Amino acid sequence: MRHVLCALVQNVPGVLSHISGMLASRGYNIDSLAVGETETPNLSRMTFVVVGDDSVLEQIRKQLEKIVTVVRVDDISSRDFVERDLMLLTVSSSSENWGAIKELVDIFRAKIVDVAPETVMIEISGPEKKLEAFIEMMRPFGIVELVRTGRIALVRGNAKNGKEN
Amino acid sequence: MRHVLCALVQNVPGVLSHISGMLASRGYNIDSLAVGETETPNLSRMTFVVVGDDSVLEQIRKQLEKIVTVVRVDDISSRDFVERDLMLLTVSSSSENWGAIKELVDIFRAKIVDVAPETVMIEISGPEKKLEAFIEMMRPFGIVELVRTGRIALVRGNAKNGKEN
Repeated sequence: MRHVLCALVQNVPGVLSHISGMLASRGYNIDSLAVGETETPNLSRMTFVVVGDDSVLEQIRKQLEKIVTVVRVDDISSRDFVERDLMLLTVSSSSENWGAIKELVDIFRAKIVDVAPETVMIEISGPEKKLEAFIEMMRPFGIVELVRTGRIALVRGNAKNGKEN
Repeated sequence: MRHVLCALVQNVPGVLSHISGMLASRGYNIDSLAVGETETPNLSRMTFVVVGDDSVLEQIRKQLEKIVTVVRVDDISSRDFVERDLMLLTVSSSSENWGAIKELVDIFRAKIVDVAPETVMIEISGPEKKLEAFIEMMRPFGIVELVRTGRIALVRGNAKNGKEN
């Protein structure tokens, strides 16, 4: 099953290496990872997406929580959450296809952030499926380069991640 | 100095642990990290933001490139690039402050993605400074929870990351 793990960790060197090492040593490939600041200074929140067996992952979650620099790890996969991903992509453009690109950018509510003589750079955010649909629509024009942030997720409503109502 | 490293890596278990371990062992704290899929299946792109001495970082960059699963590592800090970050945040809301929150969301071109009786969840993307300004504006309402993706970056114009025109 696909799991979304949210880890609250201390912002010190080594914590990422510790966590990713533990996942790698058990053969878990990290599908997506995003690490960013939080509302509290000195704490970072990591959002992992991993695919693996449920019971083994629960063991890993508990082991991760034993690391001194890890404050909390929650598996929010079974809960109702909002998931977002961000992508920048550079696409080949010419006077002929410019109109078609512009139209798709508007339909997907994406933004053009840079224009060069032969390329255009687009920013788009949303759920994973939306980004994948957009990539498919841009492929015929020629994708020069593409970078994604990896997914972040927050539980809906008043519940904090990992805390029941 | 602040460095933005873009690494193109094979999508296999252990590569993240290898890279983050190498940075941690030299005492580099990773300010921000985003890992996502690319235009090529089986390859992921990692965007690191680290703060450190220029010459030491260049050594690290070369050492990282020696790892079998690492295809390429570029330090794009000195080049002209577009940088973006994505954030989801849950803010306390009531009938009294709802109007003020909605107005700020519009000014910052953010999006409301979920509404609950006492909270509202907002999605916002942009350069780091914009997100930080938005956090400061939301703090008085009460930030319940916040998650960020970490920065991603692409070099402007026709040049691929790490390849000169």
